[in-house]
This record gives sequence, structure tokens and C-alpha cells, in this order.
Amino acid sequence: MAIVENQDLRAYCEDVAKKAKAASAQLAVVTGKQKNDWLRKSAAVLREQTETILAANAKDVAAAPGFGLTDAQTDRLRLDADRIDAIASGMEEVAMLADPIGEVIESNIRPNGLRVSRVRVPLGVVFFIYESRPNVTADAAAICVKSGNAVILRGGKEAAHSSAAIVDLIREVAVQFGLPADAVQLVGTLDREAVGHFLKMSEYIDLAIPRGGEGLIRRVAAEATMPVIKHFHGNCHVYIDGDTDIPMALDIAVNSKCQRMGVCNAAESILIHQEMAAKVLPELAARLAEFDVEIRGDKATQGHVSTAKPVTEEDYATEFLGPVVSIRVVDSLQQAIDHINQYGSGHTDAIVTRELANANQFTSQVDSAAVMVNASTRFNDGAEFGLGAEIGISTDRFHARGPCGLRELTSYKFIAEGQGQIK
Amino acid sequence: MAIVENQDLRAYCEDVAKKAKAASAQLAVVTGKQKNDWLRKSAAVLREQTETILAANAKDVAAAPGFGLTDAQTDRLRLDADRIDAIASGMEEVAMLADPIGEVIESNIRPNGLRVSRVRVPLGVVFFIYESRPNVTADAAAICVKSGNAVILRGGKEAAHSSAAIVDLIREVAVQFGLPADAVQLVGTLDREAVGHFLKMSEYIDLAIPRGGEGLIRRVAAEATMPVIKHFHGNCHVYIDGDTDIPMALDIAVNSKCQRMGVCNAAESILIHQEMAAKVLPELAARLAEFDVEIRGDKATQGHVSTAKPVTEEDYATEFLGPVVSIRVVDSLQQAIDHINQYGSGHTDAIVTRELANANQFTSQVDSAAVMVNASTRFNDGAEFGLGAEIGISTDRFHARGPCGLRELTSYKFIAEGQGQIK
Repeated sequence: MAIVENQDLRAYCEDVAKKAKAASAQLAVVTGKQKNDWLRKSAAVLREQTETILAANAKDVAAAPGFGLTDAQTDRLRLDADRIDAIASGMEEVAMLADPIGEVIESNIRPNGLRVSRVRVPLGVVFFIYESRPNVTADAAAICVKSGNAVILRGGKEAAHSSAAIVDLIREVAVQFGLPADAVQLVGTLDREAVGHFLKMSEYIDLAIPRGGEGLIRRVAAEATMPVIKHFHGNCHVYIDGDTDIPMALDIAVNSKCQRMGVCNAAESILIHQEMAAKVLPELAARLAEFDVEIRGDKATQGHVSTAKPVTEEDYATEFLGPVVSIRVVDSLQQAIDHINQYGSGHTDAIVTRELANANQFTSQVDSAAVMVNASTRFNDGAEFGLGAEIGISTDRFHARGPCGLRELTSYKFIAEGQGQIK
Repeated sequence: MAIVENQDLRAYCEDVAKKAKAASAQLAVVTGKQKNDWLRKSAAVLREQTETILAANAKDVAAAPGFGLTDAQTDRLRLDADRIDAIASGMEEVAMLADPIGEVIESNIRPNGLRVSRVRVPLGVVFFIYESRPNVTADAAAICVKSGNAVILRGGKEAAHSSAAIVDLIREVAVQFGLPADAVQLVGTLDREAVGHFLKMSEYIDLAIPRGGEGLIRRVAAEATMPVIKHFHGNCHVYIDGDTDIPMALDIAVNSKCQRMGVCNAAESILIHQEMAAKVLPELAARLAEFDVEIRGDKATQGHVSTAKPVTEEDYATEFLGPVVSIRVVDSLQQAIDHINQYGSGHTDAIVTRELANANQFTSQVDSAAVMVNASTRFNDGAEFGLGAEIGISTDRFHARGPCGLRELTSYKFIAEGQGQIK
């Protein structure tokens, strides 16, 4: 796919969007076998064409310093044969998932004999805007097309050549199996204004999914004229209740915070019931110190942990995404719930408790996409929750909440079958 | 509820929205029994207070000429004891529906022992904007609160006193059963700018539902910063296939068009396979003439029906909502499907056929919220489809499509229950 320059940008975007809409109409009626054949053959072709992809990737890597990428960022951008194999395996895994399209969600016969069914259908066209590594290109294409949607991919400039090479290959395979090539389109310009044009085209695009930094997501949410699946923050909490298995509490708190600090379902705050403060805090501080995590605590926490710095209101509201945690000792379960609903981001929050009533109160009153009982916050993702693949995690309440897999990219229609019924 | 004048309108609206948000947090944890007790007692109180409501209604009726209402419109506004009884019965019917909140939509145990469940929760706050009769006030309050949502009602000025009387009564009953009074609020100003203020308050309001004329709906869709459930048009079709039971085809076409012409699920266009044109058109024209329906037809139609006027492209795209119908003779099923997807509004479209394969092709390819096989388009509503009550019909694809009942006003959360799982 050639990089477009020097042409009317809006006209170019509209052409892409119209092609996607036309492709979505074709995609809505292809068989599951066609989609799975495309996924499996694409995986095979990506592996066969490793050298082609690596050559494109080398251009991205060479350009990385010019974009100001750090060594770590450049390393994440760099592909090798193993990483390309992993990308291919990801597409094969999507092929193994059940086809959501055509699923009868419910079907009943009405008193007059009319059979009324809700049947799952695609949404239509997905506009996916992302800043990430080249593997996201293949993942997003696989999930969108498997769920019957055409996708317009707008990747970051850093991976432009790698993404183009991948998209070129899977588009060629699409045509071989009767899928429209335009089921997957990579936006052929790096002009940031293109995003703004697409976001105004709600007549062609049914859903926008931004994945990246908060700035990008806020821009998309503000400008989009179509629905958006998004989450701004993952300010996640672990609450250690008054009656708790202490080793379990420590394991879950430390795992939630430290297993991978830079991700949205990592914990940023630990709340501890006052009865447990003395029993848990010294050991917790020692375990967090092994990961070089800085503790910012309230007065009670500071009383048990000499190295704790004073916590601020702002800390409670912050997604650190790194080696900092806020800790607060609370008087009661209710205070913990109120704290989470006030400062949290509605993403993932966990309770560790032995009390059934407390677990129930927590799951009922904490208003988050995922509420965990005696388990790490890190389990909130599509694979762990059994959705198969995931295109993002939503903290919105409308249409899709929590991890979004194939079914979350679908709509439904009612089909009413009669024998001549009139009203 | 007093009519507010001469105060800072935005501050007033924000106060209403904040109260609704606070009420929604309380509503999310009330029991189904509390909500049903409220519905049943509200029904009883509306019947007991018939005189109070009629006195308020008399003010609206007296003011109607000043608003330029026709006699027919004034008649629809007028309440009497029977109509108040029907409003009360509507609330009792909602009480009988299953409570959607807390429903486990699905629940699975993951390989690591984590039980992952999707549990239905309310959306939060619904902003309902309507132009209709006083019964809609009670209906909307019942459906929103039963589904756990607080509702901000913005009714038309024509029914302001009647709606206020109804809302005052059901708010009093709410408090008796431990529901927050602000579960139901009627906007206490008729200033049109208030709607604009509410539509900007996505931090408090989770969903906007406009019900009324296309102008109102387009305004809400354009200005809203929160999701909107809406339909602009109901340009519905009946397609009479090549192999068809003729009496059934005539009954369904005439019923779809004529049983009630001014509603969104009435047919506006009839498509006839060329093999059936001669067999169906003369009798169809005679039946439509009984309802004084004007026929606008293509050349083939005019060949069979001497009274048919020439149809235009614009006619094909028009929701007449009255005694006019467009008729086109098509070469094939595929042409009928293409016509519907081109000119239709994605609301309700029907095929009359004996051919199973044709029925399947039609239901699969017609991209509408409801697709009917051998049944009248008039069946597309919440009651007929088994949803119980209905707050509107959506032609959008996101979250809710077709009739929207209790479940369509809900979201879900994931609850993951473990025994100490870490990653």
C-alpha cells in the first residue's frame, strides 16, 4: 500500500471510508470458513514472507531515531523471525474462535405464532487508531474481520513500513478466498488531520477504537461522530478486608502492582482495613521494596512503614504506570468502596476477603468494568476472561464494558418469521 | 414540581443532573421488590388521585389553543378516568416484568479456577426528551426505574401540568418504598436551551433518548455528548416475492400500510416481483383504495393500475406517515433487497414468500433492525416482540437495535471470583 502525499486529504479519506463500507456489506455474508481460511493462509504467508516483512521493518528501525524513539521503544518496534511467527500464531488463534455472526442470541414464539429471534450481525466498519507495535496491525485486522467488520487501520508513523508490508500480504490472501481486499485498509498517509476527517464520517464508519496514550484517546472521544470504545485510565485498586488470609492478600496485592507495572490492569492503590494494617503493612512494604516500588501512604500507613512518603489527593487519583503505589488504611469496607468509586477509573478493582457478605457488597457496589474477588487485577483481559482475542478494554457502560472480543464488535437484528400474521 | 423561571439555567440543569446521578447510585442497589412496590402503589395512587390529575390536565387543555394545537391534537392531550386507569395499568404491567438487574448473562470457570461472570447492571441516568401525551411520562418513568436507572424527563410544553401532577405523585410514592425521589425528575423549565445544557453533561447522564419529530431527534443526535438511542425514520417496505400466497400477500401489504398509517412501523413502499404484478396489483389497488391511499408507481405499476401517479426517487425515500404509498415492480429478489438497502431506513422490512431460500436471502441481506417473513411490519414493537414495555425503537447498530425494553437500558460488569489466583 503506497504512502499517499500531496492530494486532497479529505477526498482520500472519504474514498477509503466508502471502500470500507462497501467491503463491509460483502463481509456480512461471507461464510465462517472463508474468514478462517483467510486467517490461516495469512498466517502461513506472513511466515513465508518473513524476509519481506523484515526488510520493511528495517526501514522503520532505521527511521526510529529520527522520530525520537528511545532504545527500548526501538527494541519493541524491531521484528525478527520469532516475533513474526508469534504474529502469525495470533491470527491462527482467532481462526479457532467460534464465529459470532449468525448466532441466535434468543428466539421465542409469540402467542400469535410469530417466531421472534435476535440474530448477531456485524457492526459494519471499524476505525482503529493505535500507536503500538506492528503485531497490533495483524491482531486488529484478524479480530475485526472475523467478527464480520471491515477495518480501517491508522497505525503510528513509527511502524508504518512494517504495518504496510503485513497489510499488503493479508489483503492479497483475502481476495484468494473471496473476501474483499478492502476488508482491511491501512491509511496511506501519516497526516494527523486524516484522523479528524475519518472521525466525522459516521455515515460510513460505525465504531472508532483508539488505543494508545490518553491524549490520543481524549482527542478521538471529543471529535468522533460515531460511537467510541475506549478507556482513559486504569487506576486500579486492591482492597485487603478485615478478615483475610494474609499470604493471599500479600500475593494478590504484590502481583496486582508488580507483575507488570506499565499496563492498564496493574494496581495503583492498595487499601487496607484498619484491623489488618499492623499485620500486613510491614511485610507488604518489604515485598514492594523488592520491586523498588515507592510507597505513598496516609498517616496510618506511615506509622507502620517508615519509608512511606505522605500521600496526596492527587496520588489517589493517579495511574502511575510505574514503581509508585498509594496506600491508605480505611475504617471500613464501605470507606474502601467509596474511595474506589471516588478516585478509581471504573476499570478493575479487587477485594481480598474471607467474608462472603463483604465480597457481595464489594461486587455489588464497586462500579467498575471488572470486580475481582480474591484474584489479581491483572486477570482483567480478554484471554484470561475467556473472550479469546481482545481489541481493547472499555470503561464505558454502553454496548461493551471490560475486555472487548469478537462479540463486542457485533450488533444484532430481529428476524420475525410468521405464517401470514397481520395486526 | 414548580416551574422554574428567571434563574441561571445551566446551574439549574446541572443541579438536576447531579441529583439524578446521586439517585442512580442508590437505585443500583435497591431490590426488585422495592421497585415493584413503587410501581404498584404508584398505579393505585394515580387512580386515587384522578381528580388531581384531571385538574392539572384541564390547565393543559385550556392552554392548547395558545400553543396552536389542532382539535385532534388537543383530544390526544385530554385525559379522563379511563385514560388515567390505562396509565396506571401500564405501570402495573412493568411491575410484572422480570427484573433485569443482577441477571447473570453468562458465567464460566476459567482453566485456573477463576469464575468469570457477566452480570447485568443499570446504565445510570437516562435523559428522555419527548413531545407526546401524558401517558408517556408514566411509561418512561416506569421503564427507566425498573431497569435501575434514574430518569430526567423533558416533556413537551403542551402536557406540562399533567406530567408534573403525575411525577409529583410517583415521586412521593418512591420515598415511601426507600427509592430516592430523584429517581424521577421532570425538568422544571420549558426553556428549549435547557435541553442543550443537559446534552453537554455526559459526566452525569449516560444515555439520551429523544422521541418525537425528526427535527427534535436530529438536534439531540447532533448536540449530545453521551450515547443516543434513536430512530429518524421508519421507511418500511413489504416485498411480495415471485412465488407467493396471493391472499396472504394482499393481507400483509394492506395491513402493513393501512392498519395505522401514522406510526414508524407502517409500510411506505410495496415492491412486487414482476411475475406477481398482474396477479396482485389490481386487487391491491382496490384494497388500498378502500383506505383512500394514493398510489405512486413505476411504469410497470402504472400499466396495471390506471389511477397510479408516477413515482419519483424522492417518493422511494419518503416516510409518508399517511395515505400515500410508493409501488415498484422489481425484476428479482436481489433487486428488491438492493432497493430496500438503498432507500429504506433500516427500521422494518417484510418479505412475503413461499420459498425458504428466498426468505433466508432476504433476512440475511436486508440490513434492518427488524426483518419480517410472512408477517406485517406492524409487529415490530416491544410488546409484540416479547420485550414487555418499550421506550423506543432504535435504528442504530450500537448497544440496542429495534425495540428497546428493560434490558436495552442496562449495561453489565464482569465479576471474577477466585481463590487467591495471581498471574
